Amino acid sequence: MTRTHFTFPIRVYYEDTDAAGVVYYANYLRYMERARTEWLESLGFPLAAFEREHRVAFAVHHAEIDFLRPARLSDLLDVSVEARERGACRLVVAQQVSRDGVALVQATIALACVDAIRFRPARIPARLARALCDATGVSRPAMAMNP
Amino acid sequence: MTRTHFTFPIRVYYEDTDAAGVVYYANYLRYMERARTEWLESLGFPLAAFEREHRVAFAVHHAEIDFLRPARLSDLLDVSVEARERGACRLVVAQQVSRDGVALVQATIALACVDAIRFRPARIPARLARALCDATGVSRPAMAMNP
Amino acid sequence: MTRTHFTFPIRVYYEDTDAAGVVYYANYLRYMERARTEWLESLGFPLAAFEREHRVAFAVHHAEIDFLRPARLSDLLDVSVEARERGACRLVVAQQVSRDGVALVQATIALACVDAIRFRPARIPARLARALCDATGVSRPAMAMNP
Amino acid sequence: MTRTHFTFPIRVYYEDTDAAGVVYYANYLRYMERARTEWLESLGFPLAAFEREHRVAFAVHHAEIDFLRPARLSDLLDVSVEARERGACRLVVAQQVSRDGVALVQATIALACVDAIRFRPARIPARLARALCDATGVSRPAMAMNP
Repeated sequence: MTRTHFTFPIRVYYEDTDAAGVVYYANYLRYMERARTEWLESLGFPLAAFEREHRVAFAVHHAEIDFLRPARLSDLLDVSVEARERGACRLVVAQQVSRDGVALVQATIALACVDAIRFRPARIPARLARALCDATGVSRPAMAMNP
Repeated sequence: MTRTHFTFPIRVYYEDTDAAGVVYYANYLRYMERARTEWLESLGFPLAAFEREHRVAFAVHHAEIDFLRPARLSDLLDVSVEARERGACRLVVAQQVSRDGVALVQATIALACVDAIRFRPARIPARLARALCDATGVSRPAMAMNP
Repeated sequence: MTRTHFTFPIRVYYEDTDAAGVVYYANYLRYMERARTEWLESLGFPLAAFEREHRVAFAVHHAEIDFLRPARLSDLLDVSVEARERGACRLVVAQQVSRDGVALVQATIALACVDAIRFRPARIPARLARALCDATGVSRPAMAMNP
Repeated sequence: MTRTHFTFPIRVYYEDTDAAGVVYYANYLRYMERARTEWLESLGFPLAAFEREHRVAFAVHHAEIDFLRPARLSDLLDVSVEARERGACRLVVAQQVSRDGVALVQATIALACVDAIRFRPARIPARLARALCDATGVSRPAMAMNP
């Protein structure tokens, strides 16, 4: 189902690399967040405005990452986002950083919707929840459907 | 066995935080790498000199991270490293970022020893392998003992 | 002379901001380097390939920066590059970060062409020197013309 | 007058370096800010608490930087801060990054005290102004003394 798939291009600059000549490992998480931000924007949810309006933020609470091959200076990368699972306060996405169709880094990222002040769990605002459902085909998990 | 445990203090500066008022999630991976570097140094292996001499590097190839509570500007954090498992070309460590004894971030990080040019797996140099065994009590896993 | 002017768009992500709610000051230098890289690429000099071929690098050796107004999360910025002066081993550019036509940060950046190993001054390779001259109208300064 | 001089040690990690094998130029500004933060803390002004209490922030509004020699992976650097000039809303410091007594980077940094919300100029709170005067010998410039 292709609607679930969003890809964002990213170029590797000096700032992203380290003295081993490759992209510094933590920076792939920055790339992934850029792609998530652009993905939400593509669904009609400009991040800053949305968070300000609803006083929520999306915080990563769990990440599993496989670093398969290094990216290097000047590489043109594709960073994908695919929604996998949605709860009332939680969203799980699969992400991949690839170069010329070859996977370099793969990750599963669990995001929590939290209130912007105390970082306590908060419900994903209804309009975004619907948009995630419509655009990605990912509804809340089965257990959540039986109140 | 307390020898397995190494802790390094880190202060949170503006550069580490983001507009949500907390430490940006990717930066915990930077903190963890600083602690791993200081841990190897404490075992007698200054990283840059060691990698230059042996033409190897340690690359993270897998990471699992739980972001439990946010750190904030000016926090004084402790970042720990504990060796968990060692193979011929591979080292797994458990790491924790805590504040006043409360865990904020927990991670399991798998490092591959790779040749510094092509990033192909390379044996952990014998002197470091021995030091890891002596200092941490972590020898190679059982399967690796039966060639 | 409009040929001298190159502009590159940059979006502000969480990674760029700090706990004061604005872009962290050092990150404007990252933005400026991205724009310089894209500018050289637009002149036919993909940076990584060029530096590898000629075994040179461009190192910033002097910078003067005015931080006029803060950029914030999600802002869409324009980062410009304009060549100002060229020596045998040296290139001076004026750069500006703006939002909706309003200048936020202005800088004069002096770059040295250096050999990639020891970082000693090296002549700007002739092909690039010519391209800078053609594309930007900036030849070597007068004093350099009188040997 | 040695009281004017404060020095903070910083180690270079992989995260600080780039594919040219040296510290990425923007990261020296991060080092300088760490040193300024520790300097204020040493004068009795823990930054986060102080800014929260007075609802002000210190924003860099001008910087002049000379990058003289590159720092490399694992270097142990000293970053100094010396107050140079103080106005009602403004503080100028000279900073240097050195290795084994050799200057690598030198900068003059002008900081503006601003209100934390709109980033408009604000008076440096009186207690800090006095401490800067006592500890550094830098009072307000002459012109400011004649209202």
